[in-house]
Amino acid sequence: MSVTRYEIRPGAYADSIVLMHLQSSLAAIEGVEDAGVVMGTPANLELLDANGLLHPDLKAVAADDLVLVVRAIDEPTAVGALGEVDSLLAARRSESGADFRPHGLRSALRLLPSASVVLISVPGRYAATVAHEALDRGRHVFLYSDNVELTDEVALKEKGRDAGLLVMGPDCGTAILAGVGLGFANRVRRGRIGLIGASGTGLQAVTSGIHALGGGVSHAIGTGGRDLSEAVGAVTTLQALDLLGRDQTTEAIVVISKPPAPSVASRLLGAAAGVGKPVVIQFIGHPTPPRAQGNLHFSTGLSETARRAVELLGEPGEDQIESRPGYLRGLFAGGTLALEAQQSLAGLAPLHSNVPILAAEPVADLSRSSGHTILDLGADEFTVGRLHPMMDQDLRLRRLRQESDDPETGLILLDVVLGEGAHPDPASELGPAIADVCKTGGAEVVVLMVGTDADPQGLDEQRVRLEVAGAKVFDDVSEGLAWVAARLAVGSAVVGERVAPSSLEPPLGAINVGLDSFYDSLVEQDAEAVQLDWQPPAGGDERMMALLEKMR
Amino acid sequence: MSVTRYEIRPGAYADSIVLMHLQSSLAAIEGVEDAGVVMGTPANLELLDANGLLHPDLKAVAADDLVLVVRAIDEPTAVGALGEVDSLLAARRSESGADFRPHGLRSALRLLPSASVVLISVPGRYAATVAHEALDRGRHVFLYSDNVELTDEVALKEKGRDAGLLVMGPDCGTAILAGVGLGFANRVRRGRIGLIGASGTGLQAVTSGIHALGGGVSHAIGTGGRDLSEAVGAVTTLQALDLLGRDQTTEAIVVISKPPAPSVASRLLGAAAGVGKPVVIQFIGHPTPPRAQGNLHFSTGLSETARRAVELLGEPGEDQIESRPGYLRGLFAGGTLALEAQQSLAGLAPLHSNVPILAAEPVADLSRSSGHTILDLGADEFTVGRLHPMMDQDLRLRRLRQESDDPETGLILLDVVLGEGAHPDPASELGPAIADVCKTGGAEVVVLMVGTDADPQGLDEQRVRLEVAGAKVFDDVSEGLAWVAARLAVGSAVVGERVAPSSLEPPLGAINVGLDSFYDSLVEQDAEAVQLDWQPPAGGDERMMALLEKMR
Repeated sequence: MSVTRYEIRPGAYADSIVLMHLQSSLAAIEGVEDAGVVMGTPANLELLDANGLLHPDLKAVAADDLVLVVRAIDEPTAVGALGEVDSLLAARRSESGADFRPHGLRSALRLLPSASVVLISVPGRYAATVAHEALDRGRHVFLYSDNVELTDEVALKEKGRDAGLLVMGPDCGTAILAGVGLGFANRVRRGRIGLIGASGTGLQAVTSGIHALGGGVSHAIGTGGRDLSEAVGAVTTLQALDLLGRDQTTEAIVVISKPPAPSVASRLLGAAAGVGKPVVIQFIGHPTPPRAQGNLHFSTGLSETARRAVELLGEPGEDQIESRPGYLRGLFAGGTLALEAQQSLAGLAPLHSNVPILAAEPVADLSRSSGHTILDLGADEFTVGRLHPMMDQDLRLRRLRQESDDPETGLILLDVVLGEGAHPDPASELGPAIADVCKTGGAEVVVLMVGTDADPQGLDEQRVRLEVAGAKVFDDVSEGLAWVAARLAVGSAVVGERVAPSSLEPPLGAINVGLDSFYDSLVEQDAEAVQLDWQPPAGGDERMMALLEKMR
Repeated sequence: MSVTRYEIRPGAYADSIVLMHLQSSLAAIEGVEDAGVVMGTPANLELLDANGLLHPDLKAVAADDLVLVVRAIDEPTAVGALGEVDSLLAARRSESGADFRPHGLRSALRLLPSASVVLISVPGRYAATVAHEALDRGRHVFLYSDNVELTDEVALKEKGRDAGLLVMGPDCGTAILAGVGLGFANRVRRGRIGLIGASGTGLQAVTSGIHALGGGVSHAIGTGGRDLSEAVGAVTTLQALDLLGRDQTTEAIVVISKPPAPSVASRLLGAAAGVGKPVVIQFIGHPTPPRAQGNLHFSTGLSETARRAVELLGEPGEDQIESRPGYLRGLFAGGTLALEAQQSLAGLAPLHSNVPILAAEPVADLSRSSGHTILDLGADEFTVGRLHPMMDQDLRLRRLRQESDDPETGLILLDVVLGEGAHPDPASELGPAIADVCKTGGAEVVVLMVGTDADPQGLDEQRVRLEVAGAKVFDDVSEGLAWVAARLAVGSAVVGERVAPSSLEPPLGAINVGLDSFYDSLVEQDAEAVQLDWQPPAGGDERMMALLEKMR
């Protein structure tokens, strides 16, 4: 019958790789059936339980206790295995301790002054301190560590922004800088596509896809999963967009992440619209606008993102659409068009609608627009005892004049839907009204036209008459909305110090603080690298650390 | 100085077209500056106010009062204009009263027994009664009227479903049946694309786009904006999918709507997956899965929807992927891949995740899967004091065995991410574990592989070893997820009576109850049509109607 024996080492720090190898070594001892070597977190205890390794005594351990469990064929084997732990640990240490390793960042940087980035993969609670020091010493930070406090992330990124340094992370799995993969990264050829990714495997899948299609990567910059939250405000993403926009190697840019906070989305899309290069954007799990808006190309899948980035390399730059100030006022007869407009213009803020979707807010007053406003004039609240605006244009004509009189209006967007049942000649009424608006020189008028050459009103004739009146007319809805989006896009000013592209020129030098395997990988890639022999303050003893903290 | 005079006609019913013409006629009288003829709803009163037509006395009118307002250069003109109202109304009535018009649906159907559809555009509160009668007489209903109660919609659609009849609407703006446009519809050539649309202008934009690209439309079936709500349960959309699936003219199908309720989405996607023809789906304002899953093609814009529908006509049918029972268990190392999987598999229910997005729910227990489950094993809760699963596969190997032991598991989905920093040979550990799973013959194993031919682990070698172990391996993430989606798709059984395609064969006969202009349009399209001379019960007198109701 199997017996299970355990050992608890309170507050003992050990590198995760060491734990993994220790567990494998214990499990490999003859007569040992299974072994667990984990920090005592609830999730880890559940896992021990699921594998029949949870001794009842272990339920009380703390998250920073090291837990060692062995299940073996008999008691002497189990006890003997646990007795091997220290010699197994010592063997591992001597194995990896061949070369000289500095103990502090200052001495590491004296060994490799050309290092432009510091990789940090120490446990989360120690990581911010190391990252602050790296920034203070003028180096970019690749922060692999997770479980880092949000307040620490904000403080680090603000420091980085003011110093022109990137803080990639925390919880950043992947980056490729100047051809060198940091953390988890696929080997891809260097090339002309720059990437920005809030999370690691997204970047890995897309860079791998680009490589498979024959393309290459200039830089792939990880930002960490919280960068696009309201609290962090996309600091790293905006820095990276600005950097890749100015980077001469980069010709097309990919941004891939979970959906940004609404307040951040607008700034991000504005910055991307102003970057002067094609940008492929994939927000996973977020509604996607129609596929292109000016230089912005929206993708819905990792494979598609890679394919489009490669395709865009061959394409000439988009015609620049000059942006103009003022608010959008959308006066729609078609409900679906009012929705598609909100989706396409989701980057505008504040955006109000009587049929709000996504980040749009309900209109406070149906009879007065405020900020950007998109109205479905065919919605129930406008049509009780009244014909639909596709037949009766009275309401829309009055509203058109009202919006034109509002000095805050920059662009009035109308749909004109032809066909059976609709007004027999919409241009006869809309034309003069549009001409009045355009004469004042205030707002411009854009018309999205839906119809066919067989429609009784005559698509071409209607279009020409509206154009003569002064409207810009599109008979492709998506194309028209893309034009409006570009017209209203406001590029975001770069705040703080800009990141110098030269700091990422090859050859890349890096200091690694944490996981040995990341250092090994740098060396294998022929990057210049130094491994720090990092140990937690006070050997990881929580009480001693608290004491030290107080004595500062 | 202008003077404003008004008249209120309590509870007076008038057709909206009559109101529009009356308002234009009043405004055209010499000396009249502006006129308003509206039902006294709050929105209409606001509009009168915005146009300087709201006399203070009018603030107290009821929503079913007819309000007539005239602003003129002097009092005699204003009073004189209001005095013209009855003769203007009488002139209008005699103008349109030329041909014989039956007063009831029964006599209308005697005149045109071949009519297969009844168009209803009477005011919302009367519409349900007319629609019930049309269904009772075995006809499809095109219900243009808005402001119809949800409970009435549910009752009508259930009646229609049990009788094999379509209830298109309420608030259905558009349909094209057998080449004849109902309500608002563009003139498009007949062809091989069938459409289903929850709202009108979406259908109009896409049918127009298809026509412009040289394609044509078999049927375009409107459903009304609430059809995909939980309360209605997509009755009409599901009927229409089934109908177009069996319709011999239709070779590709388009579904376009606002996002469905989560409980409805799964049934809808299941039905679409089982329809046996390519389906282009556009949910406006909803996250879009990668662009293709089996026969389902997701689009993000109206123009794209039209283009893809036309493109799909030329394509051979997709290879049918046989579906299989059992739950999905996704064990991911890559967080982004876990998110993209949720997006691609959003049709599955119940779907649980430790990183839930969209309709997925949080897992109740990290250590046990239930229903469909997608886990990001690299999330913080799994990695405290433990290496990332991309390096340390122990957790995943144990979980793989656990899921395999669960008889409810049908498909285990893994990602394998190669490259720098990752496990040097994942297949060495995963291969034997996958072989064990496959040997039991229970669950099947699908692997999404991310990597390049330059990665140290060797992409091809890793793939072959996992395939030999028995896994189905994809190195295109979207393609793999599409395969899994199709594999797990469950077609929905048709409930109720199926709609007979023959009922929509040309030539289409129709009875019109309500707006004259819809009748005119039917006649112009050479459809066989009869206009009903509809009047509200008791002349629209609310008290009298209530009395009549009690006497039944």
